[in-house]
Amino acid sequence: MVVRQLINDPAGFVPEALEGLSRAHPDLIRWHEDPAYVVRAGDRAKPKVALVSGGGSGHEPLHTGFVGEGMLDAAVPGAVFASPTAFQVKAAITAADRGRGVLLIVKNYTGDVLNFRIAAELAADEGVEVATVLVDDDLATDGQEEGGPGRRGTAAVVAVEKICGAAAERGATLAELVKLGTRVAGSARTLALALESCTQPGQSRPSFELPGDEVEFGVGIHGEHGIGRRPFGPARELVPQLAAPIVEALGLGRGDGVLAIVNGLGATHALELSVVHRELAAFLDGAGIRLDRSLVGSYVTSLDMRGCSITLVRADEELTGLWDAPVRTPALTW
Amino acid sequence: MVVRQLINDPAGFVPEALEGLSRAHPDLIRWHEDPAYVVRAGDRAKPKVALVSGGGSGHEPLHTGFVGEGMLDAAVPGAVFASPTAFQVKAAITAADRGRGVLLIVKNYTGDVLNFRIAAELAADEGVEVATVLVDDDLATDGQEEGGPGRRGTAAVVAVEKICGAAAERGATLAELVKLGTRVAGSARTLALALESCTQPGQSRPSFELPGDEVEFGVGIHGEHGIGRRPFGPARELVPQLAAPIVEALGLGRGDGVLAIVNGLGATHALELSVVHRELAAFLDGAGIRLDRSLVGSYVTSLDMRGCSITLVRADEELTGLWDAPVRTPALTW
Repeated sequence: MVVRQLINDPAGFVPEALEGLSRAHPDLIRWHEDPAYVVRAGDRAKPKVALVSGGGSGHEPLHTGFVGEGMLDAAVPGAVFASPTAFQVKAAITAADRGRGVLLIVKNYTGDVLNFRIAAELAADEGVEVATVLVDDDLATDGQEEGGPGRRGTAAVVAVEKICGAAAERGATLAELVKLGTRVAGSARTLALALESCTQPGQSRPSFELPGDEVEFGVGIHGEHGIGRRPFGPARELVPQLAAPIVEALGLGRGDGVLAIVNGLGATHALELSVVHRELAAFLDGAGIRLDRSLVGSYVTSLDMRGCSITLVRADEELTGLWDAPVRTPALTW
Repeated sequence: MVVRQLINDPAGFVPEALEGLSRAHPDLIRWHEDPAYVVRAGDRAKPKVALVSGGGSGHEPLHTGFVGEGMLDAAVPGAVFASPTAFQVKAAITAADRGRGVLLIVKNYTGDVLNFRIAAELAADEGVEVATVLVDDDLATDGQEEGGPGRRGTAAVVAVEKICGAAAERGATLAELVKLGTRVAGSARTLALALESCTQPGQSRPSFELPGDEVEFGVGIHGEHGIGRRPFGPARELVPQLAAPIVEALGLGRGDGVLAIVNGLGATHALELSVVHRELAAFLDGAGIRLDRSLVGSYVTSLDMRGCSITLVRADEELTGLWDAPVRTPALTW
């Protein structure tokens, strides 16, 4: 089988897609072509801390689909699976800033961490108050040696952006948002599995091949290896293998509540994600853990990868209240 | 390559998925297992015409994801790519009815048309006023011989459900809704193309194979053949081949406005759909046709098919106003 995509050419893929996104949502976002970033459309007079995130493309709707009221003020896309430049991030900070400081939400990858840090320094030189929340929720990369890159950042970033976005609209200060975002990231862990690899734009073959009887367990959102290969099986056997280690890592027990994200990696059908959610709910029921809120869909993708991730966030009244607050973005609205 | 799915067993796929969906949205929907249908959760005291749709599964989020305020009152899922039974439809009508009549929104497939008609007769026998809007927007099946099944119903059904749903909330009568829904369906045409076939649950091979240099043009949402095979090419060449015949069929010209749906068939990445939307917007710009509203995403899928459909609906102030009205369902909220 040859994999083909609905694109023009790989080099123009991301900018052309973002032009297309902005034409679908002129009321919500504005696409700035060079340097490349997406910023909220319309009136930005209300004083509030601005939220900026970003990273490599290929994970859409993350992050550009989360720009809008109640979530991000700007998102900075790199090329596919490549960090945006510090210059881009700096431009987005300047565009998003409303004079109350800027919160950067950064997934833990070396390139992103570096470029967002340089951008923060450049912005600080111009008098903009900038602070960062690092998201490092991928349990497959836990327990590395000291001084290593640490856990990768994956789908928990949606919870950090949503919850901090709501708090920012309510007037939280930059210091309060750093504390809140760090708390959300620290209360969240994710595990993913792939049934099939992704294919880079313009390539006709997947990045890796999986035998028909194995899944890539603990896969990263760029197709990175995680924990290793495991036998394929029915959802009722695979889901507990994802959920149980998260429950353990977060120390969740009977009577605790969670916010759950069941996330498709790109080519997973809605019916399959619903089955995964059913199995997750059954697993949590069995453990006496309350499923306070669920988000089920393809939100943090890895191009056209087949598979899913499960994220659990330890919930409390403050977090669920902020989660429930209104949001109006291309990919998340309620 | 072997295709695998996140399921338990094919027989339980649909009911297990719908259980999972209802656990993710307990505030919006309730899943009735036997006979199988999804109905709005919560207070249904407000008198209004009830909207019921349904059809084969495998097209999710259609229709079960569109149950909620401002859209459907109930949805009836068949097995994958198979019509629900008349008995199921009748049960959903009874559950959804609020004493002001029930509008059935039916995609034009022989089984659906038959079973919804029988259900309507059974409900009428019990004194429920029932009327039907048939959706037959697939231009690939236009111009058949007289007495044939007519055009297939595809993604325009989302516009019919959204627009009639809004009008029903505002108090439209059953007769008014039939007129409105028929007008929307008659003002809408769709064309689709597949880059890759879909795979039935439990099967390990796609339903059909496409050579690497061809696309299935005019494909149906069950993988049916349409117009034939055409050469694969960049989006800027493929999109006008979908859009131009629709523009012609609807008689759209300079100064007209449209509501556009760029729909992924199941395994198409958000970035690709955004590129398709960019090319569609450019094509409409060139034709002097106003892009009044856009919906871009995977809303009417064909399991894990790769490809997209484009739907255009001739827009006017009444239709865009109803399109913009609030909606709160699992898959569509604003």
